[in-house]
Amino acid sequence: MDTRPAASTDPTLEADVFARDCTSRPVLQDITGRWGVLALVALREGPYRFAALRRRVDGVSERMLSQTLQSLERDGMVHREVQQTIPPKVEYTLTELGARVAEHLEALIVTLETSMDTVRAAQAAYHRE
Amino acid sequence: MDTRPAASTDPTLEADVFARDCTSRPVLQDITGRWGVLALVALREGPYRFAALRRRVDGVSERMLSQTLQSLERDGMVHREVQQTIPPKVEYTLTELGARVAEHLEALIVTLETSMDTVRAAQAAYHRE
Repeated sequence: MDTRPAASTDPTLEADVFARDCTSRPVLQDITGRWGVLALVALREGPYRFAALRRRVDGVSERMLSQTLQSLERDGMVHREVQQTIPPKVEYTLTELGARVAEHLEALIVTLETSMDTVRAAQAAYHRE
Repeated sequence: MDTRPAASTDPTLEADVFARDCTSRPVLQDITGRWGVLALVALREGPYRFAALRRRVDGVSERMLSQTLQSLERDGMVHREVQQTIPPKVEYTLTELGARVAEHLEALIVTLETSMDTVRAAQAAYHRE
């Protein structure tokens, strides 16, 4: 028997991603989605235009990158600025919140990238079983 | 024109999640997947048996949690221990690497949960446009 308290449904409490109806959960999915993570971390390098960002996030389709950026803009993670040049330029940058989120994602990625020997050893052991 | 260097394919270089064929990319998807994030962060609370973990990760199906735990075990993030009791107990814990990954994920979740006012304001502004 699990003795932990059941998730509360009191709306005055703080957000809780563990509660299935919490509004934070779809946002968590946007920022940890396959392309969301990479777009946010890429934008830590500085502002990007769409085509350059698409080259940076290797393998993403135009449609998926466009949907990803729309979600991130809607959630307040990414700012989209249209510059009134001819032709107009559209540039994407991180918001203050997006920058904080992206910092955690980058730390996660660095941990993973520097631990791939451990991961590969685990994968080999798992498949030997 | 993007002047950043193209992703190298030199296998002696470190893992790079931005490269589409890098072996770290599917692992990133496992740890940032919808249920992977929640399972890893829940396991920071201590060892869990399957049914209790499923109650904690509110909304996950048995099948999805089972698949999630299998991926996390294969990637070396989660340790699955079968205790030789009658009936046998199966307990899940974080590995050392899983604990480091889960720490970053929890920091990400705390940032998100404490910023939901900012997120909701951005969402409202986006839908007014």
